[in-house]
Amino acid sequence: MATGHTDPQRRERILAATLDHIIDEGVAGVSHRKIAARAGVPLGSMTYHFKGIDQLLHEAFTHFTDHVAAIFEQRLNGAHSAEQAREAVTDLIHELSDGPRRDLILTHELYALAARHPEYRELTRKWMIRSRQPLARHFGAETARQLDALIEGLALHRALDTAPHDRQLTREAIRRITTRA
Amino acid sequence: MATGHTDPQRRERILAATLDHIIDEGVAGVSHRKIAARAGVPLGSMTYHFKGIDQLLHEAFTHFTDHVAAIFEQRLNGAHSAEQAREAVTDLIHELSDGPRRDLILTHELYALAARHPEYRELTRKWMIRSRQPLARHFGAETARQLDALIEGLALHRALDTAPHDRQLTREAIRRITTRA
Repeated sequence: MATGHTDPQRRERILAATLDHIIDEGVAGVSHRKIAARAGVPLGSMTYHFKGIDQLLHEAFTHFTDHVAAIFEQRLNGAHSAEQAREAVTDLIHELSDGPRRDLILTHELYALAARHPEYRELTRKWMIRSRQPLARHFGAETARQLDALIEGLALHRALDTAPHDRQLTREAIRRITTRA
Repeated sequence: MATGHTDPQRRERILAATLDHIIDEGVAGVSHRKIAARAGVPLGSMTYHFKGIDQLLHEAFTHFTDHVAAIFEQRLNGAHSAEQAREAVTDLIHELSDGPRRDLILTHELYALAARHPEYRELTRKWMIRSRQPLARHFGAETARQLDALIEGLALHRALDTAPHDRQLTREAIRRITTRA
């Protein structure tokens, strides 16, 4: 069987298996043994690649937040005016809330973890800072922070509602938060 | 040993033990056996009071959301103008995000559960509708929905940040979302 040295994708496979496992059973159920079985790697390679469960969870969630932040940046980098940025944000909110439940589950598993263990708040903080940067280019740092919170709330409420609000409401809320009162 | 009939507080004790257990170990670990042990009740009284894990989780989270919604209503019912309502909302956001981690953990455990299982979205929807009612009295139904999402996002981001934003930013965001653009 290949060792960690000769199988550079093993680490990636372990991280992907960790996220899949969290989606199915939650953070609480993660163990080296279960993840090794799911990733199809020997148990020894878990400890070779990851010092412990905390490092494993930290890297798996970093992988996830990098993925979501990249989509966010990509969409906002295509906007060349404040008006286009507002439209891109509207699209993002509706795609995130209509989209795969995977991302929604992982987001709340991460938030519950960070609520329990302050050491994971460095990760949630980095994610917030990265999300605000492309917003700040269009609206300034203060408004970016407010808008980032609004995006979180609107996407969350749409995803968890049985009668989610329409684009018109999203557009109006974004217009208001990006306009000085 | 007392039966369910003669111990009216047994049901309450079971629900409280369920929430405590979720805080410590997450929804995934909940079982009749573990909750019975934690509540100090015989295993048989679990099935006497609750048909299964879903009913138990549903009632425990209803208990929790009723508690948070009641605080929300109480604080907003004390406001007698839009300006007082804005100040009450500012207070609520900062209290929720500075407050006990218990509530934050339970919120995200519920959201992750509702993300996985659509049948729990009736519960998250009811919670949202109840939160919006006292906001709608001051700001109208459309704005209440936008403001409710903003409250969620601002409280969440404050709680999960290592350098949370100040009251001034919260106030400004509330002012903007409650002002027609």
